[in-house]
Amino acid sequence: MNETLIISTSDVDRIVREAGPDAVMDELIAHVGEAFATYNPSETRAPVRGGFSYDRPVTGLVEWMPCMRVGQEVVVKMVGYHPENPERFGLPTIVSTISTYDTSTGHLSCLMDATLLTAMRTGAASAVASSLMCRPDATELGLIGAGAQAITQVHALCRVLPIRRIRVYDIDDSALKTFAKRLDGLAADIEIEITDRDDVVRNSDVLCTATSVGVGKGPVIGHVEPRSWAHINAVGSDFPGKTELPVSILRRSLVVPDFEEQAVKEGECQQLKADEIGPSLAHFAGHPALAREHRDSLTVFDSTGWALEDAAAMEVFLAHALRMGLGRSVRLEATPDDPRDPYESVRAAIETHLTD
Amino acid sequence: MNETLIISTSDVDRIVREAGPDAVMDELIAHVGEAFATYNPSETRAPVRGGFSYDRPVTGLVEWMPCMRVGQEVVVKMVGYHPENPERFGLPTIVSTISTYDTSTGHLSCLMDATLLTAMRTGAASAVASSLMCRPDATELGLIGAGAQAITQVHALCRVLPIRRIRVYDIDDSALKTFAKRLDGLAADIEIEITDRDDVVRNSDVLCTATSVGVGKGPVIGHVEPRSWAHINAVGSDFPGKTELPVSILRRSLVVPDFEEQAVKEGECQQLKADEIGPSLAHFAGHPALAREHRDSLTVFDSTGWALEDAAAMEVFLAHALRMGLGRSVRLEATPDDPRDPYESVRAAIETHLTD
Repeated sequence: MNETLIISTSDVDRIVREAGPDAVMDELIAHVGEAFATYNPSETRAPVRGGFSYDRPVTGLVEWMPCMRVGQEVVVKMVGYHPENPERFGLPTIVSTISTYDTSTGHLSCLMDATLLTAMRTGAASAVASSLMCRPDATELGLIGAGAQAITQVHALCRVLPIRRIRVYDIDDSALKTFAKRLDGLAADIEIEITDRDDVVRNSDVLCTATSVGVGKGPVIGHVEPRSWAHINAVGSDFPGKTELPVSILRRSLVVPDFEEQAVKEGECQQLKADEIGPSLAHFAGHPALAREHRDSLTVFDSTGWALEDAAAMEVFLAHALRMGLGRSVRLEATPDDPRDPYESVRAAIETHLTD
Repeated sequence: MNETLIISTSDVDRIVREAGPDAVMDELIAHVGEAFATYNPSETRAPVRGGFSYDRPVTGLVEWMPCMRVGQEVVVKMVGYHPENPERFGLPTIVSTISTYDTSTGHLSCLMDATLLTAMRTGAASAVASSLMCRPDATELGLIGAGAQAITQVHALCRVLPIRRIRVYDIDDSALKTFAKRLDGLAADIEIEITDRDDVVRNSDVLCTATSVGVGKGPVIGHVEPRSWAHINAVGSDFPGKTELPVSILRRSLVVPDFEEQAVKEGECQQLKADEIGPSLAHFAGHPALAREHRDSLTVFDSTGWALEDAAAMEVFLAHALRMGLGRSVRLEATPDDPRDPYESVRAAIETHLTD
């Protein structure tokens, strides 16, 4: 009963392979959407994440994203953000693991790779926001940034909108070169057009910004007019000083944060005053009719990434893992016969060393 | 290069068995002492821990204790505190794991059981404080609370002081009954006397309080006069509202916190005004002559438990594990050939499901 279930990347891959990427994404969209719609701060506590950021040995940060379902479990996602990872180390920019702790005992019940989970749930959150705030006939998807997160944005949005064309821009040609290949099988019958960033902004019904722009280096789009009904998922803004959108666009949009308390510190909402910020995604998810009223005007989903989403996504993956019997159980933590005896298992050595 | 080393409780036990409990404790005292003495906040960041506390399903809390050595690594200890664990679940009150993250990439490089580490480093911290502030000829050790933490307090203090007699009190007889047995081999030639709490307080050169007293239920000792030169390690006060010492004793003592910013929220320092709090243990460890000036008067080490100690203790255990080739390497995190392709390993399934 006190083992820790370790679910590694190969287990996660197997879940997605066997259940099917579309089915898993659909589940994540439903489950993350439900978590927002039913969010009740007295039942679920998901505070602003904490973390360390640094400039050496490289530019990066390690953060902890805790969430508690009161009376049930604590879920903590650890996430590293290191923009130089792909070029320097051949690793994803975002590397992550997620753990669950039993609130009866403090026992670490599960540790899971959360790199794919993070990419997929970020896509799922944009899908939740976009189905609420986009015109349902949105066919033109624009992407600023063609990295790993762009792939799951496309995947998720194509599950909820009738996307027919993707316009994509990245400052890094190498990301653009492999973009179509990385979308293989996820965007069938969808035209992919590599173009300049103004074209992307001007001609999108739904737009995603998912860049590794540096602190203070935004915005990542120019002073170009988006479509008057466009919905923008601003995904990359997730750190103090890191923003992607021009404040001029934000001021003319209804800006809906995933979690306002965090978004004012790390998201596009950093650029806004309190009275310029719209209702939260939780509010809209709970009252979809209110959200729909904004479908014909400019809206922004300020997606900083909230622990609430991770806890919901963890449930989806964990249920599959348990059903499929995946993962390996490790007796990680001490379970002495006498819980008051920390040295129980080493007592023999105490005697031996004494007589030495 | 991207595997995660899992060091379980049996590996930790083997380290302590093979190196010997005394040798490991001596190393911890030296290493934790060094961490305090050389602490430089621009090189080591160890903020106040965060956590969730709750009353259901049981009274407990799960906390995260992060520490970063700038340019090197992030260490995060997760710790559960559940006072009902021994009686209800046969588990230690404090259950813990500790992880290290590479600040070059965010990679989780190691996960280790930290239950014994926590107990031992808490003892080591008291030994560091006591060797600075106790009379070097202290022979009488008093304990209020005879649980798991009491054992490592005794062990550590006996490494640095010529203890000859232990007076111990606990409100729970079952803890007292097994106390001598649990000290087996750690307190050779030391007389153990189970007595009332006033006797413990009155007749100790060095006193440790290590209880699970409830929030608002302190103090755990009465209005009895300790020896005028006594040093008190207040170990159990580690949560808002949880304190062990009467404010009257604190006011007459030099109170030295492990980490003032945390101690004013969770430690005995909650009961004091800023100008009633003495220098930190880091200051004294860096200037031992200053500490020694207080050996003949009443001193209190306000030990809330600081992430700095955990990072130092982790180094000790990890070095042993690496030297002995312990632990198992797990390929936990995703390492795609193309770090921008989150679905690389599931692509085959995408194609299959598409043609279904």
